Amino acid sequence: MSGPALTLELIREAHARIRDKINRTPVMTSETLDSMAQARLFFKCENLQKTGAFKARGATNAVFSLSADLARNGVATHSSGNHAAALARAARLRGIPARIVMPDNAPRAKQASVRRYGGEIIFCEPTLQARERAARELVGRTGAAMIHPYDDLQVMAGQGTTAIELLEEVPDLDVILCPVGGGGQLSGIATAAKALKPSVRILGVEPAGADDASRSFRAGHIIPSVDPKTIADGLRSSLGEKPFAEIRRYVDDIVTVSEESIIQAMQLIWQVMKIIVEPSGAVAYAAMVGGAVPRATRIGIILSGGNLDLDHLPWQA
Amino acid sequence: MSGPALTLELIREAHARIRDKINRTPVMTSETLDSMAQARLFFKCENLQKTGAFKARGATNAVFSLSADLARNGVATHSSGNHAAALARAARLRGIPARIVMPDNAPRAKQASVRRYGGEIIFCEPTLQARERAARELVGRTGAAMIHPYDDLQVMAGQGTTAIELLEEVPDLDVILCPVGGGGQLSGIATAAKALKPSVRILGVEPAGADDASRSFRAGHIIPSVDPKTIADGLRSSLGEKPFAEIRRYVDDIVTVSEESIIQAMQLIWQVMKIIVEPSGAVAYAAMVGGAVPRATRIGIILSGGNLDLDHLPWQA
Repeated sequence: MSGPALTLELIREAHARIRDKINRTPVMTSETLDSMAQARLFFKCENLQKTGAFKARGATNAVFSLSADLARNGVATHSSGNHAAALARAARLRGIPARIVMPDNAPRAKQASVRRYGGEIIFCEPTLQARERAARELVGRTGAAMIHPYDDLQVMAGQGTTAIELLEEVPDLDVILCPVGGGGQLSGIATAAKALKPSVRILGVEPAGADDASRSFRAGHIIPSVDPKTIADGLRSSLGEKPFAEIRRYVDDIVTVSEESIIQAMQLIWQVMKIIVEPSGAVAYAAMVGGAVPRATRIGIILSGGNLDLDHLPWQA
Repeated sequence: MSGPALTLELIREAHARIRDKINRTPVMTSETLDSMAQARLFFKCENLQKTGAFKARGATNAVFSLSADLARNGVATHSSGNHAAALARAARLRGIPARIVMPDNAPRAKQASVRRYGGEIIFCEPTLQARERAARELVGRTGAAMIHPYDDLQVMAGQGTTAIELLEEVPDLDVILCPVGGGGQLSGIATAAKALKPSVRILGVEPAGADDASRSFRAGHIIPSVDPKTIADGLRSSLGEKPFAEIRRYVDDIVTVSEESIIQAMQLIWQVMKIIVEPSGAVAYAAMVGGAVPRATRIGIILSGGNLDLDHLPWQA
């Protein structure tokens, strides 16, 4: 629990730094989904963010926070995909190289996205250990600045900017539902939202098959994710130390959802709202579909990303 | 060519009548698609309209234009789908019944959508003749007001409201690309856009396998669609008389696109923009993908709808 804490001030600075480099994503509503939920739902569409995910916020803030000296040899990271593309784009905007360690089973759509933004991919085995080792080697060899996908204060601050925009547009929310994987987005959103509106309840949502965050939350210390089993590939990571400190401070609860409700949530969003969310991006809404959320009048739901292979969809036989 | 003409004034009246009953849809942009096209593209997202298609505009305007007396027995129509759901929703907003004649091969997603809004479906054979006969019977039996899907001045006026919003947001467009089936949307958009900005070029786009509009445009009289063959199910109808009169007046050209470019356009929009368009909805962008459009700096593209069965996608084997 050492190190500086995340604050609304840091998140506001991040917003000022990145706002002309990212999309102010729309907050969408749906009569049909409202009537199914018996509530007013406000979907913050980070699937419509640059690079197709909220990760553009944190990566852009981290890259543009670097001093000229630190940025000189470019940036590096390990990521299953969305942070990777976001970092590649942010580095290109700043005019420095980005080198990305990626598990060799990362969805092809996410690999293509990194290459589209000019990032260089170094593949490794799909374990956290292999990713971290390959990333350390890479940094040693190139002198690049390591931008961790979530265990980084400037990344967390960038992700928190979502809450500033959401509460500007819908100030009277009762609850915000946000997916949790490594915790970068949840910690940023919780920190900003509780500072802006102390009465709002912040609920993290994660797949039951990758429930390290809810177990850690209850235990009061990090319990690493071991062999997570979920279609939500973006949420398989273990919680980071820095995000966890803020999550303990500001998050009201972490709930879990079944694979069936993730797929059903995804399908409903596609069919009714006509927007594409990836499994991880549908997890917060899955908590509504699966009935894991107590009834509330006005609910903000973070749709965190929309990158997936479109050749086979999870509801197809 | 008799009967009153469509005017900007009628379209402005329509906008005032419907604006609190429909979405003001976003105009989306994409760095990736811009760089592929070597142009600035502005996508007017009618796939994110109420009921998932621009048809909500025309149907709502037509239903709320009816006198209390004409509305008393409800409304009826024949439609392959998007107008049907839009009419059902508009009728429910006004508190009157909607009865819809639909071809028995209409996509299931479109049938479900009609039922969701409380419309009653009467199935018929998938020919224009069978549709019109069934609709006449229905009107005779119920006294419902017939709201034609496109050959109706108030429907055309409603569809034209899209152009008012698009040009408010992006006043300096050089070209607008719009799909053409029955011609309701193209006639409305062309009428409004040419009145608001006479220099803008209006191009209709249709599938090569359903090219009655481009043949009619060149011939100067309507050549009905015979056995249209295209994946774009919303564009199989023949051009209506009333839309055709305005199209001859205001449209600069009608171009055709291949089935391959429709599917490629659809896939690019899904992958890059993270929004769902149906084949008909991707036809205007297909003209960019297929190279059918002369280079222009700033191009407005109408994405007209997003309703399709998600169980099988056209790029899947």
